[in-house]
Amino acid sequence: MPIVIQKYGGSSVANARRIKNVARRIVKTAKSGHQVVVVVSAMADTTDELLTLAGQITANPPRRELDMLLTAGERISMSLLSMAIHDLGGQAISFTGSQVGIITDSSHNRARILEIKADRLRESLKAGKIAIVAGFQGVSLAKEITTLGRGGSDTTAVALAVTLGARSCQIYSDVEGVYSADPRIVRQAKKLPIISFDEMEEMAAFGAQVLHVRAVELASKYGMSIDCRSSFTNHPGTIVGKGSKMERVTVRSIVHDKSLAMVTVKLPAARSSAMPQLLTRMAEAGIQVKSFFHGQAQEGKLSLFFILDEADLSGAKAVIEKSTKTSGPVQYRINRDIGAVSLIGSGVGGETAILSRMLKTLAGKKVHVQAMATSHTRISCFVLRRDLEKALLALHLAFIG
Amino acid sequence: MPIVIQKYGGSSVANARRIKNVARRIVKTAKSGHQVVVVVSAMADTTDELLTLAGQITANPPRRELDMLLTAGERISMSLLSMAIHDLGGQAISFTGSQVGIITDSSHNRARILEIKADRLRESLKAGKIAIVAGFQGVSLAKEITTLGRGGSDTTAVALAVTLGARSCQIYSDVEGVYSADPRIVRQAKKLPIISFDEMEEMAAFGAQVLHVRAVELASKYGMSIDCRSSFTNHPGTIVGKGSKMERVTVRSIVHDKSLAMVTVKLPAARSSAMPQLLTRMAEAGIQVKSFFHGQAQEGKLSLFFILDEADLSGAKAVIEKSTKTSGPVQYRINRDIGAVSLIGSGVGGETAILSRMLKTLAGKKVHVQAMATSHTRISCFVLRRDLEKALLALHLAFIG
Repeated sequence: MPIVIQKYGGSSVANARRIKNVARRIVKTAKSGHQVVVVVSAMADTTDELLTLAGQITANPPRRELDMLLTAGERISMSLLSMAIHDLGGQAISFTGSQVGIITDSSHNRARILEIKADRLRESLKAGKIAIVAGFQGVSLAKEITTLGRGGSDTTAVALAVTLGARSCQIYSDVEGVYSADPRIVRQAKKLPIISFDEMEEMAAFGAQVLHVRAVELASKYGMSIDCRSSFTNHPGTIVGKGSKMERVTVRSIVHDKSLAMVTVKLPAARSSAMPQLLTRMAEAGIQVKSFFHGQAQEGKLSLFFILDEADLSGAKAVIEKSTKTSGPVQYRINRDIGAVSLIGSGVGGETAILSRMLKTLAGKKVHVQAMATSHTRISCFVLRRDLEKALLALHLAFIG
Repeated sequence: MPIVIQKYGGSSVANARRIKNVARRIVKTAKSGHQVVVVVSAMADTTDELLTLAGQITANPPRRELDMLLTAGERISMSLLSMAIHDLGGQAISFTGSQVGIITDSSHNRARILEIKADRLRESLKAGKIAIVAGFQGVSLAKEITTLGRGGSDTTAVALAVTLGARSCQIYSDVEGVYSADPRIVRQAKKLPIISFDEMEEMAAFGAQVLHVRAVELASKYGMSIDCRSSFTNHPGTIVGKGSKMERVTVRSIVHDKSLAMVTVKLPAARSSAMPQLLTRMAEAGIQVKSFFHGQAQEGKLSLFFILDEADLSGAKAVIEKSTKTSGPVQYRINRDIGAVSLIGSGVGGETAILSRMLKTLAGKKVHVQAMATSHTRISCFVLRRDLEKALLALHLAFIG
C-alpha cells in the first residue's frame, strides 16, 4: 500500500472539535487504501503559552530546558489526535520524535535532522496502524531532546516522506495553498496550482508562511513534491514540485515580510577585515542574516548593512558589542521598521525589464527603497514597514493583475 | 556528599512564583553540601486540564495514549523548575522518567516500577548538577511511556531514594506533615512528629492525602524514612519511619475518605464459587477493592459487599455485568454515598476496648455504621457520607482530644 504523509499545523488541531475533524480526514485517507503517517504540531497557542511561562521564570532559559519544555506541546496534540482516531474505530499510535528515531545534531532550539531510523514507524505501519508523529522534535546522539526551530514540523514531514519513500507529502494548514500574494491583504490574489521548489524556497525565506524554508530545501534536495492544502476544505491546493522547464520568466508571486530590521555598521576602511569576522560570529550565534551588502568606503569609513529578522536583533547587537570589545569600537545604528517586498519567479532576478518596472511602480507610489537584493528567482526591495502594504498592492496589480 | 531527594507536589509548583520559591529551597539545599535530586509533579491543575481535553475527544481514551498525554505535565514543570534554578546561578538538568531509566511493567495508567537504571542521574550528580526528574512516569521494556497512577510522584521519589542510597527522602506539599486528622475539618488536629510505616500505610490507604500508599509501602520495604514537609514554611514536618517498638497501643490519627461507594451483590448460595471469580476479575481490571465482606447466606442468597473508590464504580459495574453474561445473572445494588472513618494506630485493630469505644461514640452521635473492617493497625467504619464529618469530629474528641 502506498504511504502518505499528512502534516497538520497548530490551527488545524487548535481544539477538540478540530482534532476530531482532522481525525476523520485521516481515517478516510487510511480507508481509501493508504498507509498513513501523520505529523502534528502543537495545538494553536500552546507553544506561545509555554514560552510565556518560561519568560515568567527567567529572561535567559537554557536552550536544553527550553526544548524539554516546548516538546510537551506536540505530546499533547499527538496523543489527543490518536485518541480521536481510536474513537472513530481506527487504530492509531503516537510517537515522540525520539521514539521514531529522528536523530538530530545537538543544536538545541535549531537542530538539524541527521537521520531518521523509523524502525518503530515501519513496524507499526506493517501492523496496520496509523502512526502519529510529533513534529518539530528529535533526539541528539547524546540522547538529549532537541527541537528544529519554528516551523520545524514541516521539515519533520518532508524528512519522513523521504525516509519512508512516501507517494505524497501533504501539508495541511488554514490556507488552501500558495497564493500570488497574501490573500488577507491582496483580495485579487490567486491560488497557484503548481510552483517550483526554487520559487517556493525564496517565497518561504522572504515572508510566505505557508511552508517552512528548510522543509522546501529538503524537499527540493530529494525531489519530494509537497501538496499544500487546507484542513478545513476539500479544495485542491498547491503542488510544490520540480516545475516546468518550459516556463517563460514571469512573476509568480509577491511575498512580503513585515518583521525585519536593518543594522548599519560603520567601520574604519582600514579595518575591513572585521567584516567577514562579524558575519562568521553572527552565523555562530545562530543569527540568520537575510541580506548583507556594503557600500563603498567614503571619508575613510565603510558601511555594512545587515537585514535580519526582528527577533534576531538582540542577538545581533550582542555579537556587535562583543566584537567591539575584541577588535576595537565600531559605530552601529538599528532601524526596526523595515519590511521586504519580493517578486518571485524563476529567472526574475536576471531580467532587467522586471527590475526596472518594479522600481518604477514603487516610485510611482512614492515608496522609498532603502536597499535591494536579488537572486535568480527573487528581487527584494527593503522598504519602511509603513509602506509595505501599499507596495504589495501596487506590485500585485502591476505584475499579476 | 550525601544525596537528598526532594519531591515537590503540584501545588508547590502551581505557577511561576511558586516554582521560583521551590528553586530557592533547592539551591539552598545544594549549597549546604548535598547532592540534590528533585522529583516534580505536574503544575497544579495541568493533569485535570489534560484529562478534560481527553474527555472532549473520547469517552474511552486508549490507556497508552492517555499516558503519552499526561506525561506532558511533568515535562513542563520540570523544565521550568530547571530554568528557575539556572536563573539563580545553579546548575540543573531535567530528565524524563525514560531518560533516567525508570523501568516499569507495561500496565499503562498504573504501572509498577521494576528497576531504576539511574546511570545518567549518577553522572549528572557527579558533574555537580542538580537533577530534576519527572515524577509519576516511566518507560516499559517495550519502550512505551507509562505512568504510575495518581500520586505516583511520591513513589518515584522513594524509589530514587532507595536506588541512590539517599540520606533523606523529603516530600513537600502544601501541608506541614501528617496530622491526627484533616486540619481543614478538625481544628484541634495535631501534627505528628513521627509515625510508623504501618500506620502511614493504613492512613494513606484510607483517606490521608499527604502521601501515596504505594510510596509508603516501598519506603517500608526498604526502610527508607520519609520526611513530609510544607514547601511554604520552614517548620519541621513528620518523619515516617520504623517507629518506636516501645509504643503502647494508642490511636495516633483518624483519617476519613469521603469518595467511596458500596456495591452489594446477591448470589444464589449454590453459586458461591462466583465470589472469588468476581474478586479475581476486579483485580484483573485494575479495580482496587478497599474492603470486601460477605454476609451469611439467608433464604438461599449470599450477599457480597464491595467497598470501592467511587472512581472505580463504572469499572466494577462492567466486571459484574460481564460476569453475569458468562456465569448467569446476579442482582446488584450500588450505594454511592459512602465514606469511611478510620482509627489508625499500631495494634488498634486487636484492642476490643478501642473498638467498643469507637462504636459507642458513633452511636452516641446517631451515626449508623453500614459496615466495618479492621486490620492490625486500623479500624474502619463505613458510614453514610453525610455523617462523615460528625463522626470524625466526635472520634477525634474521644480518642485524641
